[in-house]
Amino acid sequence: MSVTNRSEIRVGILGAGTVGHGILNLLRDNAKTVEARLGAPIHVRRVVARDRAKSRDSMIPAERLSFDPAEVIADPEIDIVVEVMGGLEPAHTLIRQAIEAGKHVVTANKALIAEHGDALIELAEKKGVDLYFEAAVAGGIPILRVLREALASDRVVSLSGIVNGTSNYILSRMQSGNVEFADALREAQEKGYAEADPTLDVGGGDAAQKLTILATLAYGARLVPKDVHTVGIDAVGAVDMRFADRFGYVIKPIAVAKRAHAGQLDLRVHPALVAKTHPLATVNGALNVIYLEGAMLGPCIISGLGAGALPTAMSVVSDIMDVARNLMVGAHSRVPVRAYQGTSLEVQPVQPIGELRARHYLRVPVRDLPGVLAQVAGALGKHGVSIEQMVQDQKLPGTDATSIVLLTHEAKDAEVRSALEELTKLETVLERPRVLRIEE
Amino acid sequence: MSVTNRSEIRVGILGAGTVGHGILNLLRDNAKTVEARLGAPIHVRRVVARDRAKSRDSMIPAERLSFDPAEVIADPEIDIVVEVMGGLEPAHTLIRQAIEAGKHVVTANKALIAEHGDALIELAEKKGVDLYFEAAVAGGIPILRVLREALASDRVVSLSGIVNGTSNYILSRMQSGNVEFADALREAQEKGYAEADPTLDVGGGDAAQKLTILATLAYGARLVPKDVHTVGIDAVGAVDMRFADRFGYVIKPIAVAKRAHAGQLDLRVHPALVAKTHPLATVNGALNVIYLEGAMLGPCIISGLGAGALPTAMSVVSDIMDVARNLMVGAHSRVPVRAYQGTSLEVQPVQPIGELRARHYLRVPVRDLPGVLAQVAGALGKHGVSIEQMVQDQKLPGTDATSIVLLTHEAKDAEVRSALEELTKLETVLERPRVLRIEE
Repeated sequence: MSVTNRSEIRVGILGAGTVGHGILNLLRDNAKTVEARLGAPIHVRRVVARDRAKSRDSMIPAERLSFDPAEVIADPEIDIVVEVMGGLEPAHTLIRQAIEAGKHVVTANKALIAEHGDALIELAEKKGVDLYFEAAVAGGIPILRVLREALASDRVVSLSGIVNGTSNYILSRMQSGNVEFADALREAQEKGYAEADPTLDVGGGDAAQKLTILATLAYGARLVPKDVHTVGIDAVGAVDMRFADRFGYVIKPIAVAKRAHAGQLDLRVHPALVAKTHPLATVNGALNVIYLEGAMLGPCIISGLGAGALPTAMSVVSDIMDVARNLMVGAHSRVPVRAYQGTSLEVQPVQPIGELRARHYLRVPVRDLPGVLAQVAGALGKHGVSIEQMVQDQKLPGTDATSIVLLTHEAKDAEVRSALEELTKLETVLERPRVLRIEE
Repeated sequence: MSVTNRSEIRVGILGAGTVGHGILNLLRDNAKTVEARLGAPIHVRRVVARDRAKSRDSMIPAERLSFDPAEVIADPEIDIVVEVMGGLEPAHTLIRQAIEAGKHVVTANKALIAEHGDALIELAEKKGVDLYFEAAVAGGIPILRVLREALASDRVVSLSGIVNGTSNYILSRMQSGNVEFADALREAQEKGYAEADPTLDVGGGDAAQKLTILATLAYGARLVPKDVHTVGIDAVGAVDMRFADRFGYVIKPIAVAKRAHAGQLDLRVHPALVAKTHPLATVNGALNVIYLEGAMLGPCIISGLGAGALPTAMSVVSDIMDVARNLMVGAHSRVPVRAYQGTSLEVQPVQPIGELRARHYLRVPVRDLPGVLAQVAGALGKHGVSIEQMVQDQKLPGTDATSIVLLTHEAKDAEVRSALEELTKLETVLERPRVLRIEE
């Protein structure tokens, strides 16, 4: 089989959901552009749907629709298998089978690459096929390609961003509309930005999966999502938005992967106060943003839509074209991702979260009695946490309950947690204080 | 000569200035990373300097320093020629000779690619070698790679940005420091952001060259810098900054390449009012930013340092690595740039600037007499230009001179120019009015 001058690139798609349809739409609307640039058309030989009962629209002609993934994996005519089913299984097994069968694979499966990317990349290199997954992180934003190719000659020293559009939408709404978390979540669900079960988004799990993939490429570290310290945004109150604003900050759902001292990686996903002048502060709504710092490049910011059928489909098809170019020149594994992943670079341990040094925001619900501030300051000071600035809220009507809201100087995370335990035990403290990190 | 499993990639560098030294610095500092990722080290066999008299620092060992470009071009051991001399000649002739000699070429030469890129790319494809030029546009920002590969499957519908850091620094300083153009320029020169002869930067010529390259890749159009309507920033006054602010705008040095009606391209470089909430409004200092809109991708923003030895060197070395990967797998012209350039896509004419429809800012210096506003409004109305909002400035002390400052509704550029001629002839108008476009 000649590898050059192909008359067409033959693709099989596993998954006929939103992204699958986005791919078919894109290949129809941009067919001329894609063919001109690639030098060959992309032909979708088969689309495998999961649910036989669900009616299919006219995008998929009956003769190309299948319900059996083996019809793609075993088809010798198919060059590239595109996996857009999502979820760990059966996607994982099918991708392994496809690679074993010598197929190149393009996937948008974030959870799968975050958990098993390393082993799959190893298998793909062993079998001499390409495995591309740009669409697995931040939808249409080409961040993996930028890390893998544009920054190939550089070392990343810091990466942070907002990589979950649902969380960003919710916090943006809480801020601009002065509404509570539950109301902002309901609104996000009504607008289609949040799933019926929003746990993975608002709990930070989705962002942790994306950060795992980003940090793997950026630092050549072998990581899985459970290496990422993860805190959801559901603990943020509208009142915290207002206090953050008074101090000159907004609250954003951030993901961070930085080089820490001693070769360790600082990896975390949580809501944080960021100064209004910070590059992440002005990225609102469902947008994603990634802030990179390269040793040579310096700062670089990329933002755009992190989700949606068409941006995601765009990334998938650009990956198909990249793989097709390798096919057409008889090259595979042209950019050996494993060379980024610790085989010859140092392996980097993750910094324990207790070691993280940061300034903190604390909101302490207290009884408004003489001496309460001294008690709070004393409890903090005992654990080495000092106060940078402080405001006291108005009393709740008809009660003596109020809140002391303060920003600390830089302190170790473990010290702040100990101080928090101490504070919670005080009689004048009415509830467990709310604590948020400040990202500089 | 086997093309795979190279023991090293051999490079010759034409140019021993700032960028040339940046490349040598990067290859020394990031040697381990580059070799691990590429699978072979990059060896600089020769550096060609222009000026024999200038002393060379220790970065270039005497045995590798040369003053004769032929020692690079004729060296059969050199795989890739890197051109970082700048200027049209002798760079143009040398690059042609290198391509003719079968060398792959990486260049950072913006002026050359903007003027002769099309013919050079054609020659490179004919000779079966690669010609890469990421560093020619916006320093370390990987915008060409994003257009060429990440958006390979998409059609760009709009591209705009700030691509001249010197102009952005000057206008940012005029705004934040309330200083005049001449003072901000002097400051930029003192800080090394502006050349002794700043004409190419502040006159818009540099931005027009970059826009030419960007628009060529984004739209598949064959363009040269003189296709770009170009206005410098030197006509902007500190007073215009203050009025723009009152109306909710900032003034930015923008470059625009949009699809206009009838398949035409709207191509222009000029200072413009942009709303404070516009994505370009918050990018200050010497930063560059590019705002893209893809038919499928939607909006995407990339920003970073558009100049500087290390960011530029980073782009050059990532290009070298990309070319080296093609070499190592025996593939060249893997991404055929000419397929983006009109060979099979439609050729797009440039929209005459007079046809552009935009809102405008006008500052009209007038004598403060009864009826002057009616005269101004009448002159505008006669040419079909209507006023959206207006303020009258305070009188200059001890005179009856003042300014009427207004924003127009959308009008054709040609109509605004005619109205301007009419206004200038009025007896009550003291000077030629200042006009700036508003970018939505």
